[in-house]
Amino acid sequence: MAEKPSRGLADVVAASTAVSDIDGQAGRLYYRGFDIHQLAGAATFEEIAYLLQRGAVPSRDQLDGYRAEIAAGRDAGPLVSDSMRAVACSQGPMEALRSLVSLASAADPDKDSNDRAPNLRKAARLTSSQPALVAGYAAARDGREVAAADPGAGLAANFLLQITGKQPSDRAAQILDTCLILHADHTMNASTFAARVCAATLSDMHSAVVAALGTLKGPLHGGANEQVMLGLEAIRSSTGGDPVDAVTTQVTDRLRQGGKIMGFGRRVYKAEDPRATHLRQFAAELAAGSGDDTYYRMSRRMEEVVLAEKGLYPNVDFYAATVYHYLGIPTDLFTPVFSVSRMAGWTAHVIEQHADNRLIRPDSDYIGESGLTWVPLEQR
Amino acid sequence: MAEKPSRGLADVVAASTAVSDIDGQAGRLYYRGFDIHQLAGAATFEEIAYLLQRGAVPSRDQLDGYRAEIAAGRDAGPLVSDSMRAVACSQGPMEALRSLVSLASAADPDKDSNDRAPNLRKAARLTSSQPALVAGYAAARDGREVAAADPGAGLAANFLLQITGKQPSDRAAQILDTCLILHADHTMNASTFAARVCAATLSDMHSAVVAALGTLKGPLHGGANEQVMLGLEAIRSSTGGDPVDAVTTQVTDRLRQGGKIMGFGRRVYKAEDPRATHLRQFAAELAAGSGDDTYYRMSRRMEEVVLAEKGLYPNVDFYAATVYHYLGIPTDLFTPVFSVSRMAGWTAHVIEQHADNRLIRPDSDYIGESGLTWVPLEQR
Repeated sequence: MAEKPSRGLADVVAASTAVSDIDGQAGRLYYRGFDIHQLAGAATFEEIAYLLQRGAVPSRDQLDGYRAEIAAGRDAGPLVSDSMRAVACSQGPMEALRSLVSLASAADPDKDSNDRAPNLRKAARLTSSQPALVAGYAAARDGREVAAADPGAGLAANFLLQITGKQPSDRAAQILDTCLILHADHTMNASTFAARVCAATLSDMHSAVVAALGTLKGPLHGGANEQVMLGLEAIRSSTGGDPVDAVTTQVTDRLRQGGKIMGFGRRVYKAEDPRATHLRQFAAELAAGSGDDTYYRMSRRMEEVVLAEKGLYPNVDFYAATVYHYLGIPTDLFTPVFSVSRMAGWTAHVIEQHADNRLIRPDSDYIGESGLTWVPLEQR
Repeated sequence: MAEKPSRGLADVVAASTAVSDIDGQAGRLYYRGFDIHQLAGAATFEEIAYLLQRGAVPSRDQLDGYRAEIAAGRDAGPLVSDSMRAVACSQGPMEALRSLVSLASAADPDKDSNDRAPNLRKAARLTSSQPALVAGYAAARDGREVAAADPGAGLAANFLLQITGKQPSDRAAQILDTCLILHADHTMNASTFAARVCAATLSDMHSAVVAALGTLKGPLHGGANEQVMLGLEAIRSSTGGDPVDAVTTQVTDRLRQGGKIMGFGRRVYKAEDPRATHLRQFAAELAAGSGDDTYYRMSRRMEEVVLAEKGLYPNVDFYAATVYHYLGIPTDLFTPVFSVSRMAGWTAHVIEQHADNRLIRPDSDYIGESGLTWVPLEQR
């Protein structure tokens, strides 16, 4: 038995997986053996969700069938629709999604089985209902109706339509589609690991995904992309001068005082996060077309300053923030957008965990007092 | 870096904790340095929840203050009360609790802070609202009102009153109180570990507890006590003869065919689970007073058969089932009762995690294919 804890389980191999792989030294990420650099721009999110969940690239017929499941799975049932307005008016976006996905299990006909076929069906439904829940939440709190989904459009295009209420350009939809691919899985990240710990008690997929959503909510995980945007906004609004120069001053000061800058550094990569490469390009493209590239230029400057001061590269959250901003997504829905994508990976890991399960139950190192004697209340 | 996974993280030390400790060889469990054999029958659940969450035995004044927090914390707010009926009519007990606790964060004034003082207040509220949610669920699905809590009674007595709708005897309330103590914490069990993985992203206490509830739901964890009772009921209803003799036949057959019997064996104890010792005594006492001790005699026989055939001892779930049955608790609420107790431990671990945090993010071992080339859809 190991005597000393590995804080945060860094470098401890917790599970075997065939879903994804990271080469941290080379800065590479693979989904079921495919380098994500091959997939970005070449695949659709639906193909990648299928690949991750079902383990193989879909044929055209298989993809048609999966798309039909996605189209049929948007409605999460009456318990969710009846609760949406009250939830949207009283819970923040990630709290609300945690609640709504938990409520959604009520309407799932496969909720009581962890077998492969029902798990695959649930995975497709959860992948489909998640963007509908995010869009439904956004609309409900704004007091508007959700735009009807376009049956001919893909998940990303419909999501962008429904979350913003405006028809997106083909290119904007394509960029969001690739963003969803880039965020779809990342081995044993904290939310995926929470999902597997949950599923390993032979609890069900909805429970595991709800655990993952609550875990993604944290600012050290999915919450980071929102923090990045809030940081950029704070710097911009704090200065009467050039916000790009303000980045240099404020970020340098913060780093020299021992502070942290959200969106930089990640335990697993020693080189640039391969997802950041694509997201930086999208941010540049969208900024150029937006008429106001300030946040992009601020981001570039921040990247230079943090690299010079700390030798840290931007992670997936850093340019995702700017990209989502230019796509017209409200800042507090950035982490929910992450959840739409990562749903593909979470569900794939639950399927894999259930297929070859063992309870995940680590040891702990006791550091408290010992040998105490209980004194009854009346003698205290 | 470890190259091979430790399946289920068995014997891997994942965290340091001062909340509880297990001596698996000796069959001992300690809460903050106190052997549970000292606490069973001598302490109240409120004292133990305070001890686990706040790290010290309460003085009389401190306990009075904590009891006042418990009394004030029962109502989980309008989002929960407005949803209760629909949730109770469409979700099973653990699904419902996962949803209701997620909804409950909306009304918590401390939901946005992970600092110690707000975390302590949230822990008291969650400890208080959990029995109210279980009782509210039980009443709502049966279409009855929840009996008003007795302000002079403790948490266990009020819980038993509200869940059954009948005033419990002092002894029954005392036995349930001790059951809650015995289940209150157990180091890095799967649900507590899920809560810590969630909290370690700096997500909030409600998210962590919701993750824990979904994890406890699994039949390899909290769901086991319900499975034990269903197993006893199935054997009893399957025979026209003596159900105790039927235990011998059926359990022997199942074990010799390689099957498992729920409620036996546990990764961490090599001797008898110290909690089972107390629960067996309670089962005997309640059975003797019930007028029908069949389930107790069946349990004793099952214990003998499994020990003889497999050398396995009963775990905490085994006699808890019989005890809860004789206390008049519906079988499908056994795992919710477990959650009422373990809430004390989950919240204590979240407080500890937030006080000295590091992201929990293990590695994984990739076992899939490599070096694949993506073929676009139109070429498939």
